[in-house]
Amino acid sequence: MIRRIDHVAIVVKDIEAALKVYRDALGLSLGHIQTIPEQDVKIAFLPTGDSEIELLEPINPDSGVAKFLAKRGEGVHHICLEVDDLETTLAELAASGVELIDREPRQGAYGRVAFIHPKGAHGVLIELLERT
Amino acid sequence: MIRRIDHVAIVVKDIEAALKVYRDALGLSLGHIQTIPEQDVKIAFLPTGDSEIELLEPINPDSGVAKFLAKRGEGVHHICLEVDDLETTLAELAASGVELIDREPRQGAYGRVAFIHPKGAHGVLIELLERT
Repeated sequence: MIRRIDHVAIVVKDIEAALKVYRDALGLSLGHIQTIPEQDVKIAFLPTGDSEIELLEPINPDSGVAKFLAKRGEGVHHICLEVDDLETTLAELAASGVELIDREPRQGAYGRVAFIHPKGAHGVLIELLERT
Repeated sequence: MIRRIDHVAIVVKDIEAALKVYRDALGLSLGHIQTIPEQDVKIAFLPTGDSEIELLEPINPDSGVAKFLAKRGEGVHHICLEVDDLETTLAELAASGVELIDREPRQGAYGRVAFIHPKGAHGVLIELLERT
């Protein structure tokens, strides 16, 4: 049902500063950098194995990601798990009483997505992605 | 140089409670549960794709993991990246001025490991693992 860790997203103040560590010192490859205005972020995609590390830089101080950064500082923002069947997974989570942010799938950049609330997943914001 | 995300480790108060979400509701497979006294943790290993999600439950209230849990609550504890050559990676990180916890590799359960300080990796505790 869960295929893999699609990506781990790390919120940072400045992508260029973070790339000095993650790309230049650690040696991860930078795929590309993309600004996604509807998500209020600029993202650097660093593929590794069959997953990616994503560096998120907020571009709008009123966005959820910017508020997360202001409150908690830099660090892991969410983990994305690729699922086979998002509706079935959401139904099983809801039946188990797991607190969800999205009870229904919504359209993301690469497929349908839904988020589990950190209160439901022992402190971790989890994105579920069904690629289309 | 970085092969993949080896695992994402999530610190939890109670592995059995966390398994109700991660195994029973999300559908991840439980590989095994192991107590590692020298690391002061019990770990549930949940393989997915070419990575694992690990649930860490502290077994000693004086340990670093227990203090992390007490201070920050449940959530992502660290990300482990598998590297080809740990000494070279550590040398490059040190040359770049990245703050390290371990300047030299030490022996872990599955190979040689070293940790990057969260201050050096934009808020993320990163374990580097060279499997042997």
